Amino acid sequence: MLKNDTFLRALLREPVSHTPLWIMRQAGRYLPEYNATRSRAGNFLNLCKSPDLATEVTLQPLARYSLDAAILFSDILTIPDAMGLGLYFAEGEGPRFERPIRDEWEVRNLTAPDPEVSLRYVLDAVSQIRRTLAGSVPLIGFSGSPFTLACYMVEGGGSEDFRHIKGMLYRRPDLLHRILEINTQAVIQYLNAQIEAGAQAVMVFDTWGGVLSSPAYREFSLHYLSMIAAGLTRHAEGRKVPSIVFTKGGGLWLEAIADAGFDAVGLDWTVEISDARRRVGAQVALQGNMDPMVLFGNSDSIRSEVQRILSGFGSGSGHVFNLGHGITRFTDPEQVAVLVDAVHELSRPFHEENL
Amino acid sequence: MLKNDTFLRALLREPVSHTPLWIMRQAGRYLPEYNATRSRAGNFLNLCKSPDLATEVTLQPLARYSLDAAILFSDILTIPDAMGLGLYFAEGEGPRFERPIRDEWEVRNLTAPDPEVSLRYVLDAVSQIRRTLAGSVPLIGFSGSPFTLACYMVEGGGSEDFRHIKGMLYRRPDLLHRILEINTQAVIQYLNAQIEAGAQAVMVFDTWGGVLSSPAYREFSLHYLSMIAAGLTRHAEGRKVPSIVFTKGGGLWLEAIADAGFDAVGLDWTVEISDARRRVGAQVALQGNMDPMVLFGNSDSIRSEVQRILSGFGSGSGHVFNLGHGITRFTDPEQVAVLVDAVHELSRPFHEENL
Repeated sequence: MLKNDTFLRALLREPVSHTPLWIMRQAGRYLPEYNATRSRAGNFLNLCKSPDLATEVTLQPLARYSLDAAILFSDILTIPDAMGLGLYFAEGEGPRFERPIRDEWEVRNLTAPDPEVSLRYVLDAVSQIRRTLAGSVPLIGFSGSPFTLACYMVEGGGSEDFRHIKGMLYRRPDLLHRILEINTQAVIQYLNAQIEAGAQAVMVFDTWGGVLSSPAYREFSLHYLSMIAAGLTRHAEGRKVPSIVFTKGGGLWLEAIADAGFDAVGLDWTVEISDARRRVGAQVALQGNMDPMVLFGNSDSIRSEVQRILSGFGSGSGHVFNLGHGITRFTDPEQVAVLVDAVHELSRPFHEENL
Repeated sequence: MLKNDTFLRALLREPVSHTPLWIMRQAGRYLPEYNATRSRAGNFLNLCKSPDLATEVTLQPLARYSLDAAILFSDILTIPDAMGLGLYFAEGEGPRFERPIRDEWEVRNLTAPDPEVSLRYVLDAVSQIRRTLAGSVPLIGFSGSPFTLACYMVEGGGSEDFRHIKGMLYRRPDLLHRILEINTQAVIQYLNAQIEAGAQAVMVFDTWGGVLSSPAYREFSLHYLSMIAAGLTRHAEGRKVPSIVFTKGGGLWLEAIADAGFDAVGLDWTVEISDARRRVGAQVALQGNMDPMVLFGNSDSIRSEVQRILSGFGSGSGHVFNLGHGITRFTDPEQVAVLVDAVHELSRPFHEENL
């Protein structure tokens, strides 16, 4: 039994006493205790691949703040790593792959990894985190979206212009579709294995869908997101397993995203949440959407932005407070405490009909 | 008298025989002749500051392609450079300022430069380009937006998270407003001086407005864009001087942007141009919006995207074809020829009522 199921209830638009809150990348480099564990691990990949250390860092932000959910600490690129692309992190740079996927031969040889075998370390972390949480708050499992994974797989790492994957998209859409089909199958199996291991909600991060044109987004990202929604295990341990989809930069396409079949839609901070609720809030819950940079303000400006977003959503359930993107490493942990307290305190009046 | 005024007519939504086209950053590193001139100049700033060389590179893409407008070759950061911030380009990196604006003292000492004095080299380039164009196509003058200039001035260069300017925005909005007021005054004087020197249309690039939340965009970017629209010289040489505003990532705010007082609104490729026309096309012309990465496809995919965008806008005037962002240095110049021919050829049926 969960002591605090506010997060799960809000995702299903069931009554809650306050607006639940978690923070994308809440176990991250803004926390000194995270940096200490990471140093101990030697590098980021060791941290991801050790269930003990992944459990430790997953729990760190919950020890500091009264967050309403934990999220599995892992990397977004575990799937392509398990496909044999050779994930590594160059010092001071983002993730890179030793063997990016560019030509037909490389695409033809790609297969979805069996998560029970090659992503065992993630599933072990999920089980261990669940045991350690001991019913305090729910645990979120996650995956990158098929398109976002493909970006890294084809570019070979991060990109500013995405010219390799977009070149493939326009020149050889058949090859990109083949990669996306395999990624979709892999993501479904991976998320369902996380649910079986104990994840109580799942989120798909479509970090790069927003770099596409509107029709390309529908064909190369949203289509596969819908297949994932259709393939997810919807019940486990006698309750629903809510799902969240987040396309950063997807504000123009909210109606279509809300139709994809997930329970909740993540919003970045460029979207006015009142507009978003008007456009799609009868269909899905909304998660977001404070600019992470608001945490570089002061207590007053943080509280004022929290109030603005809570008022924008308005009364009733169906809102999970979050940032509109991951928290940055330069954030002062004290400001996060201000945020968490503000959301809990200022959101109660919006749920008074339920008290 | 202009031999080809299609661009100016389309901005004013007057009948045209084809959809005019120019390309953001059309004088740029994808052209070998540009790279040759740049080498000769020694560095990028010398190229900007020499009216002879700026004229030479402005004309280069027009010699290759039948573009419908020329755009002044210059840097977006000439204004803060003229304010004394010390613009420089570190090798392999973007622009940087030696003296960024961070504290109250630095803000209080900021003043708008007199373009006739400290931006004389730009005005001389405008006059010289106009003479060299000899009425072939119109010349576009341009400036960065007050907020976009402030981003560079406060961050000290490019940024991924904009934490300095956003920290100022949330902690000391009074300081940021002061910077924006000075920038606005400077941009108006600068654009009007370009018009006096011969620019036949002007464009304001709000490259970074899209990184703001919706209310912050209105307060810190759009408000100042409206002031610019109100302060621009609207007639010169016996004809209207149309103005274009472009907020990259501003698709969610199109209605508000169309209300700012410019003749045309630029669109990035995430916006469906048919939706944009429905939302604001009765009020302003639209410029855009092909993903620059479509040029990494093949002739068929380029023509097919051109057709999709032309059909999306539909029949009648009020559309200037462009990319949704600057062309990248890795583009094959041959593909640009395919684009230019496709726009001219495929757009004629959409203007047949005027023939």
